[in-house]
Order: sequence, then structure tokens, then C-alpha cells
Amino acid sequence: MKILYIGDIMGEPGRRAVGRMVPRVVSQRQVDVVIGNGENVAGGFGITPELAEELFEMGLSVITTGNHAWDKKEILDYFPREPRLLRPANYPAGVPGNGSYVVETPGGEKLAVLQLMGRAYMPTLDCPFQVAKREVAKLKREAAAVLVDMHAEATSEKMAMGHYLDGDVVAVVGTHTHVQTADEQILPKGTAYLTDIGMTGPLHGVIGVKKELAIEKFLTGMPKRFEVASGPTVFCAVLIEVDAQLGKAITIERIRVID
Amino acid sequence: MKILYIGDIMGEPGRRAVGRMVPRVVSQRQVDVVIGNGENVAGGFGITPELAEELFEMGLSVITTGNHAWDKKEILDYFPREPRLLRPANYPAGVPGNGSYVVETPGGEKLAVLQLMGRAYMPTLDCPFQVAKREVAKLKREAAAVLVDMHAEATSEKMAMGHYLDGDVVAVVGTHTHVQTADEQILPKGTAYLTDIGMTGPLHGVIGVKKELAIEKFLTGMPKRFEVASGPTVFCAVLIEVDAQLGKAITIERIRVID
Amino acid sequence: MKILYIGDIMGEPGRRAVGRMVPRVVSQRQVDVVIGNGENVAGGFGITPELAEELFEMGLSVITTGNHAWDKKEILDYFPREPRLLRPANYPAGVPGNGSYVVETPGGEKLAVLQLMGRAYMPTLDCPFQVAKREVAKLKREAAAVLVDMHAEATSEKMAMGHYLDGDVVAVVGTHTHVQTADEQILPKGTAYLTDIGMTGPLHGVIGVKKELAIEKFLTGMPKRFEVASGPTVFCAVLIEVDAQLGKAITIERIRVID
Amino acid sequence: MKILYIGDIMGEPGRRAVGRMVPRVVSQRQVDVVIGNGENVAGGFGITPELAEELFEMGLSVITTGNHAWDKKEILDYFPREPRLLRPANYPAGVPGNGSYVVETPGGEKLAVLQLMGRAYMPTLDCPFQVAKREVAKLKREAAAVLVDMHAEATSEKMAMGHYLDGDVVAVVGTHTHVQTADEQILPKGTAYLTDIGMTGPLHGVIGVKKELAIEKFLTGMPKRFEVASGPTVFCAVLIEVDAQLGKAITIERIRVID
Ligand SMILES: [Fe+2]
Ligand SMILES: [Fe+2]
Ligand SMILES: [Fe+2]
Ligand SMILES: [Fe+2]
Ligand SMILES: [Fe+2]
Ligand SMILES: [Fe+2]
Ligand SMILES: [Fe+2]
Ligand SMILES: [Fe+2]
Repeated sequence: MKILYIGDIMGEPGRRAVGRMVPRVVSQRQVDVVIGNGENVAGGFGITPELAEELFEMGLSVITTGNHAWDKKEILDYFPREPRLLRPANYPAGVPGNGSYVVETPGGEKLAVLQLMGRAYMPTLDCPFQVAKREVAKLKREAAAVLVDMHAEATSEKMAMGHYLDGDVVAVVGTHTHVQTADEQILPKGTAYLTDIGMTGPLHGVIGVKKELAIEKFLTGMPKRFEVASGPTVFCAVLIEVDAQLGKAITIERIRVID
Repeated sequence: MKILYIGDIMGEPGRRAVGRMVPRVVSQRQVDVVIGNGENVAGGFGITPELAEELFEMGLSVITTGNHAWDKKEILDYFPREPRLLRPANYPAGVPGNGSYVVETPGGEKLAVLQLMGRAYMPTLDCPFQVAKREVAKLKREAAAVLVDMHAEATSEKMAMGHYLDGDVVAVVGTHTHVQTADEQILPKGTAYLTDIGMTGPLHGVIGVKKELAIEKFLTGMPKRFEVASGPTVFCAVLIEVDAQLGKAITIERIRVID
Repeated sequence: MKILYIGDIMGEPGRRAVGRMVPRVVSQRQVDVVIGNGENVAGGFGITPELAEELFEMGLSVITTGNHAWDKKEILDYFPREPRLLRPANYPAGVPGNGSYVVETPGGEKLAVLQLMGRAYMPTLDCPFQVAKREVAKLKREAAAVLVDMHAEATSEKMAMGHYLDGDVVAVVGTHTHVQTADEQILPKGTAYLTDIGMTGPLHGVIGVKKELAIEKFLTGMPKRFEVASGPTVFCAVLIEVDAQLGKAITIERIRVID
Repeated sequence: MKILYIGDIMGEPGRRAVGRMVPRVVSQRQVDVVIGNGENVAGGFGITPELAEELFEMGLSVITTGNHAWDKKEILDYFPREPRLLRPANYPAGVPGNGSYVVETPGGEKLAVLQLMGRAYMPTLDCPFQVAKREVAKLKREAAAVLVDMHAEATSEKMAMGHYLDGDVVAVVGTHTHVQTADEQILPKGTAYLTDIGMTGPLHGVIGVKKELAIEKFLTGMPKRFEVASGPTVFCAVLIEVDAQLGKAITIERIRVID
């Protein structure tokens, strides 16, 4: 099974890049499952039901989110209705939506996708490590192959999660920082790992935001309404080949294409 | 002029990797100036005068540090005596040491190295953006080529600094997160940029730390004495070619070698 | 000279309490100058020109703000036009508004009011300690008596400022935490000090916010639109008597009245 | 039942103040149970078995701690052996020690003491609100009267806990900020509340630390070895009268005595 996971999709430029690149990569690399992080598709802040539908139509089987999950109010009611739209599983009991979903390919192979969120420099949630162990055990009763998205800021928390789940899941990949890291690897016990997939969106902004606005915020300390940057885009993703029956990673490969 | 900048050198494994790799890269790639981040050379925490001397003997012309600059007390008196050992320039007035140094090659070419530290999720210092403008202007009277190390956690603050100084300096490269990023590029106005060079040290730890200790810290929330991991090492660096007379970047290339 | 400083005025209930209490305290205690913190007067978030006018009409001579200074966009243009409305003086150069104002009483006595903002667990600004020394020196050329508001979260940063300025200013009082502290004192070198004046607003909320909303935010980790609580109100202020000619504090007294 | 709870006891000056004040208050006010926060008794950082014994001998029935619980290594083995020494109950499973203890007076009355720690600007632990509900329910099977210490930085998190448990426990009182607040009250459903009891220790330091060292840390941004201040001391505590059979608060009174 070949999985394509697209990093944080930023605004309209990000969605266009997804529309352009997904069909190409899927056919060239024989991708079976496409996943994407959608926490920034709505002008950089959150996601709406319409934009989620748009991404599903572009071929995504699962959409993950993160700390920006709730930026658009209209998504609150949509979360419980759409099991393919995830929010981190370590949000406490009572929060709308789900943290995992099991995809089944036309050929009958299964992949469980689990999203977690880190707590270092992030909102305080339930412990992602405790939740990971519990949820991975549960999901493995449904699917031998479990892929984990660790949406987090600190490299240490992401790598700790990689090693913590090493051997239990097919992959631990990170989202949230909007910059792709170059440390793709198969960890010692067989789990594919990448600290951050990177953003799909404007290349010449500041993590997708118009650079002048981001710089002014750092210079003044004042709040600033952000806008998505324009210009050339970058498509950041990761391609993971797994043995879905055995629940083992085979290869992990970064994709970073500038149009 | 070819510059090799080695990312955060972690403990004894990191120093060994530097000793092994620097002569090789310098001769193969005709490197003129070697710089390295030394904030973690002393068992992961800080640097001592002896270890600084050891790195200078291995061929480094400048050693940068960061938030771990002060971990070893014996370094406090050494800072004012050794201008080639830098701490971020945006520490306030009165703090020992310097934030910049001008290297001169045997061929008479000059490179100014300036270190700054970010403030997002970091200790609160003077504004790195204000200090950058002031110090770069000063340094350009001495050397057309200025290289900036932005030691910071947040990708947004590093990219904002890259764009803020774009066209004014030959390069803005990042350190501190210990994970190399894959976004090397020449920014629109000509500055070479990389969000983080990555760590030189143990490959299978958690940003260089023994993984069991890092995981236990996340699981318990208790303070934990960290130890440098062992096993295979990774050498992370960046190779930047610049026109030192014109103060222009020519190329930027990541180096990531696992022994 | 008797100064009444009213802590963070929270929404409509806070404004009503100000309207009710100020005339009473001013006449009973022969107050010469009334100051109030207005960062939460507009429904808990920021201040508008209209609400600033309303507070001036209620007898305030100076309005301070804080991290919520910019919550309402319409205040941006008003700041440069109204010197009696302050924002912390350690916002960087280029930020609209002023950080200090010199009040003159009908009797010709002068009081300089300076607002600073802490950086621990707060937005990163210029160093409040460096700015304090510079601004206090400047203000003392205009008025022997300088009062400092340290708008900050951490008790340590507020007390450090108190001792740092002890003997140089008539008072260092804190705002921002919305809970009055019980440590009013004259510091060893003569400066009146109180860590936090406390909030003027709804008594039975969570720092002024409807308690159900605040609790739900802590329980879910999701963003939550806050509303000002209702019910009985508390008026929190501090009364400081100073010798304006000598620039010396005489007494400091907390006021906390529940209606 | 009359309960005396002493706020963060700071170093040797704090212990001396406890030794001097406890017998006096206990006899004058007919106190039944004395509790104290001991996270700073060992030179400002943590607690040792010897110092815990010293405090028990001074008449304390329960010692609470907080984020400084683990500063001294020798306490790790002591925690499981001494049920009267508490650490916050929302440390995750597997952490040594207990988060609650049930005191029985000579007259046969029972008081359950539960410590929790906030997460805003603090180490990330399990959710204090979830743990509170679970632990309070458990403890009420043993004792009608439950007192909660909320060791936290943010006033909002402490007040939210007060209202969250209002009516379920006899008292919610705060520790950690080292500055006593002036908001003692009986909440609407009957729980006694105080945001922070304040520190027992040196009056003229910065939350107990030598003021020169604290100021220098803020001025330089460098780490600084802290020392406990000297000079006059302040004894901060709270006196709560409860009906232990009914599990109802009767009165709450702050104590703040400068020697
Ligand atoms: Fe994102
Ligand atoms: Fe995110
Ligand atoms: Fe480092
Ligand atoms: Fe660092
Ligand atoms: Fe406020
Ligand atoms: Fe504030
Ligand atoms: Fe404490
Ligand atoms: Fe504490």
C-alpha cells in the first residue's frame, strides 16, 4: 500500500497545488491512499464543510487538522457528521469529532489514521503519549497498519513519539511547523518517521503568511490580521510504502515540488 | 568563498563526527571557512574553554552558541577573552561575550558572522530584528559578506528574519531545533536561507538525548537528568558559496551524512 | 497629593461600578488624581474612543491599557490623538500611542504616570527594566512624582520592578491578573508598592468572564468566545498619598468594595 | 474544625517563621489541623526528608508541594513512604507519591486534603479539572470535608477551579505565586476560596529570592543561581472554619503577619 500524506494545506494557493499535484503523483507513483492536513485551508485559519468536501473530491480519503481545527464556527456541527475529518485524538472527552479513521482501499486493504497533538508550546490537552498507546491498541484490532500524525511544535516531542511508537505503527509523521524536515528514516524497530511534512502553499511567505505582515508583527508586538501570501507555491508531502497485512513500513520518501 | 556551517554539535558523539567529517568536506569541497554551533558540546549542555579549543583545533574559525551558552560556569570568563566564540547579539548590554566576529581567510577575503536568538518560546531578550538591522549595518562597514545564524524555535520567526534581511546579508541559517529542514533556497532578493541546519550527534536519540529519558520526561512531567545518546551519528551542516566581494550568495546545499 | 488608581475595568459592570464609586471616594478621601486601567472596558476586550471619553467624563485623568490595548481596531487612530490614553511604554518604536503622561492638578501639582508591560508569559516587547530607567529619568525632569503601572502576569517580574525602581518613583503598582493582592507596602527606599490592584467588574465570574465559559475552555481545550459575567460587582483600587514636590510616597491603601 | 493552611514556606527564614507562628496561632485560634506548602523549604528549591520531618514536628499534619516537588533527589524515595507529603494529584500514573491524604483529628473529625496543579504557564500534566472531579468523589466517601490546594500561576485557572468545585468541597485555596491575594470569599454554593495564600519567608526579596539576583536575571536574560533573601519575614496563611460533618465552609480569613 502506498500512502501520500500532504502537509498543512495553506489557503487557496495550497488547495490549487493539491488539485494540480495529487492526480499526477497518484498515477505516477500508484498511490492507494491520500491524506492531507486541512487546518489552514480556509484563508490560513481552519476549514469549512465546503472546503472539506472540495478536498475529498480532489481524492483525499482522510483530512487531519490540529490547533486550527476550530477556527471556523461552521465546522463544529460538521465534525460529528464526517468521520473522515479528524481532530487530534487527545482532545478531552466531550469535544466534537474523532481522532482516528480506518480507510479501506478498493483492494480491501486497511489503514488506520490517528492524529495526536503535542503539548510543548501548544494548547494543553490530554497526554498524547498515553492516548497514543490506548488508541493504537484499539485501532490495531481493526487494521494491522496504523499511521500516526503528530501535530506538534517541538522537535523533541515529535521524535519522542516516533521512538515511543516505534515497531507498533507503520509511520509517525509530523505536521504544524509548515517547514519540511530532511530527517525521513525508518526507525530501529521499523516505523517510518519524518519530523514534519511541511506546508503546501505559498513559497515566499512566512510559513504561508504574507511576509510583510509577519515581519511587522515581530517588529511591533501588536496583533496583526494575517493574509495568505501569493506567488509560486510549494507542494510538500511524504510518500510511505507499507505492507498493510504485516503492518510494516517499507520505504519513506519526501516530496517537495515548487511549481 | 565556501562556508561550511555545522549545526548544533551534541556531546562527544557530535565532536567525533566533526573531527571525522570536517577534514573530508573541507578538502573535497574546497571550504574556506568552517563555523559550528557549540551550545551542546559539553555533554549536551553548554561548552567549556577546553572544548572550544578542541573545536578551533579541528578547523572551526567561529563557534556560535545559543540558549545553552551559559550552562557551564567556567565559560563565563572565557567569553570576553575569545572573540571567536559567539553568543547571540541580542543579549542585553552588559552580558559577557560578543555576538559577531569577522573572519579573514588566508586569501584576504572577509566574512562577518552574526548570531541572533529568537524570542518565540525562548528566553526574552532584546528584539532580534532591531538588533539585526543595527548590527548588519555596522558589520557591512567591515565585510561585504555577512552570514546570520538565527538560533530559534519557531519556524515563523526564522523565516521572517530571512525575509527581513533578504538582500542585505549573504545567508540566514537557523540552529536550535536539532532537526535539519529541507527548505534550502535563495530568497527573492538573493540571500541564502535554511530554516535549520540540524544537529551533529547521535542519530537515534531524541534530538540527541537518550530516547528512554526523553520519553519518560514526556510521560511523567517530572524533571529528568538527560544523557547524550549513543550509536550511529549524523553530521548535519550546510555549504554556502558566496561572492565575498559583492556580498552575494551563489549556492546553498544541505549536508546530512550518517556514519 | 492623593491618587486613586482603579484596576482593570471589566465591561459594562465595571464601568457602572466606576461611575458609582469614583465620586464617592473622590469626595470622601479628597482624591486629586484618578487613574484607571481600561484594557477590558469594551465587553472585556479592549477599549473604543467612545468608552475612553466616557471614562474621562467620569473623572479619570489618565487611562492605561495593556496587552488588550489593540483589541478594538477603532482605537488605533485614537491613540495618537489622545495623550491621556496610555499603552505600555516598552512597545517598540513605531507603535501608535504613548507610554506616559504628566497630569497637572488644579493646584498646580504634577504627577507623571508611566505604564510598562512585563514579558514573562506575555507578548515579547522591549525590556521593561531598561525602558523604565530611561523613561523615569526623562519624566523626572518634568515631575518629581512618577507613578508606574507594571502590567504583568508574573509576581516575580512585578516585585523585581518594584525593587528596581524603589526610591526613584513614588509608586509601582500592578495590573493585569484581575485579582487584588494583599501585599501593599512602602518598600525599603520609599516607593509605594502593590503587586496587583485587582479587577473592577463582576465578582462571581472567572476574572470577570462568565464562569461557565471559562470552565468549559479549561475542560475542552477549545477556543471559546468569552462574555462578561453578571451579578454583584467588586470595585478594586488603590489609594496612594504622595508628596508631589519631594516625589515621596506617604501611604498606600487598598480599596476593595463589593456592591 | 479550624484549619490553618500556610502558603509556600521559603527556605530557612520561612521555616523559622513557621516555628514561631504556628504554636501561637494554633493556641490563640484553636486550630485543629495545620497544613503547609513545602515546595520551597530547602533553600528555595524543593524539600528533603529531614526538612519534611522538621515541619511535621512543628505541628503540620500535611505538607503539599508543587512544581518544585522534585528539586531535591533524596525526596524521590521518601514520597512513597510518607503519605502525609503530597504532590499534585494530576501528575500522571506512575509518578511517585500521592495527591491526597485524609487527616483525622484527636476528636475523630476528618479532613481530606487534595492537591492539584494548574497547567497555564506550568508543566503539562493531566487535566486538573478532570482529576479534581474524580478524586473529590473518591475522597468524599472517606470524609465529608475536602480541602483543595490549586497550585497554579494563572488567576483564571484558580478561579475556574473554585467555581468548578463550588459546593462539592469546603475550600479551594491557591499556592505558587508567593503573593497573598485579597479575594477571600465564600463562593455562591458555599465553598471557601482564596486565589493565593502567599509566601511565608523573606519580606524584602522578590518572591523570597535575593532581590539583586532576581533583578539581574530580568536585566540580562542569563540563568542565575538564586539565593533566599534575608531580613524581616512575612507569615502568610489562611484560617478556614468548616463543619466537618456537613462538609460546609463557615468562614475564611487571611493571615499576613510581618515580624
Ligand atoms: Fe498549520
Ligand atoms: Fe497547527
Ligand atoms: Fe542546541
Ligand atoms: Fe538552543
Ligand atoms: Fe485586564
Ligand atoms: Fe492585561
Ligand atoms: Fe512556591
Ligand atoms: Fe510552585
